[in-house]
Amino acid sequence: MSAGHTGVTPLPAPCGLPEHPDCGIRDVLDRIGDRWSVLAIVELTAGTRRFRQVQRGVHGISQRMLTLTLRRLERDGLVLRTAYPTVPVSVTYELTDRGRSLAALIGQLADWSLANRDGVAESRRRYDADGPGSGVS
Amino acid sequence: MSAGHTGVTPLPAPCGLPEHPDCGIRDVLDRIGDRWSVLAIVELTAGTRRFRQVQRGVHGISQRMLTLTLRRLERDGLVLRTAYPTVPVSVTYELTDRGRSLAALIGQLADWSLANRDGVAESRRRYDADGPGSGVS
Repeated sequence: MSAGHTGVTPLPAPCGLPEHPDCGIRDVLDRIGDRWSVLAIVELTAGTRRFRQVQRGVHGISQRMLTLTLRRLERDGLVLRTAYPTVPVSVTYELTDRGRSLAALIGQLADWSLANRDGVAESRRRYDADGPGSGVS
Repeated sequence: MSAGHTGVTPLPAPCGLPEHPDCGIRDVLDRIGDRWSVLAIVELTAGTRRFRQVQRGVHGISQRMLTLTLRRLERDGLVLRTAYPTVPVSVTYELTDRGRSLAALIGQLADWSLANRDGVAESRRRYDADGPGSGVS
């Protein structure tokens, strides 16, 4: 494979193909691509919550969607569901250690967004004023 | 606001609402929710690439979608596009410092996925065998 006249390096096998040693990015996209899961994890970062509390905290989620989301997170071992034998039964949700480790990374992404918000906005202003491309052509 | 009989703490204002001090999570969801952007960033983590190389590296992306994706990433100041005055014009793409800082976080997420893959699979097996809920009810 030729690197061509611009001096860039040859390609490795594409990520996400069978012959590519799995880099984990497909899992990431499946997980982080689900907005409700991410918002529920963020909501549970603050502590143990009852169903209605999570629902109030995750703006716009339906009862059914939150049920599915929490079930999925519990199935993946990210959320611990605990039912208390009260009348009526009381159920709480909290992050597991695994869930907290993922929540920490999501928190870092949120921090990155805040830290880079002004810079991104400035880049967009420049791009929209000057047009694409920074090269000599 | 009552904490109720299960002893959970009161709720803060929901994240993502106007009255909530912005935690940055909406930006994260917009950015990471776009699979093509994430895959293009991962592809460029390896180094400077020409358009065709990025396209081969991001399996399944169309020429038009890659054009839009790279333009968006350039507009956000995550990718630097350089055009060389060859015939025909040669264009390369590389991550900026800002792009690399985001790529590092995406890489941490991918590492998390790999490190937790077995654990998640085991949790799913247990959940599917024993059913939902770990409480006493």
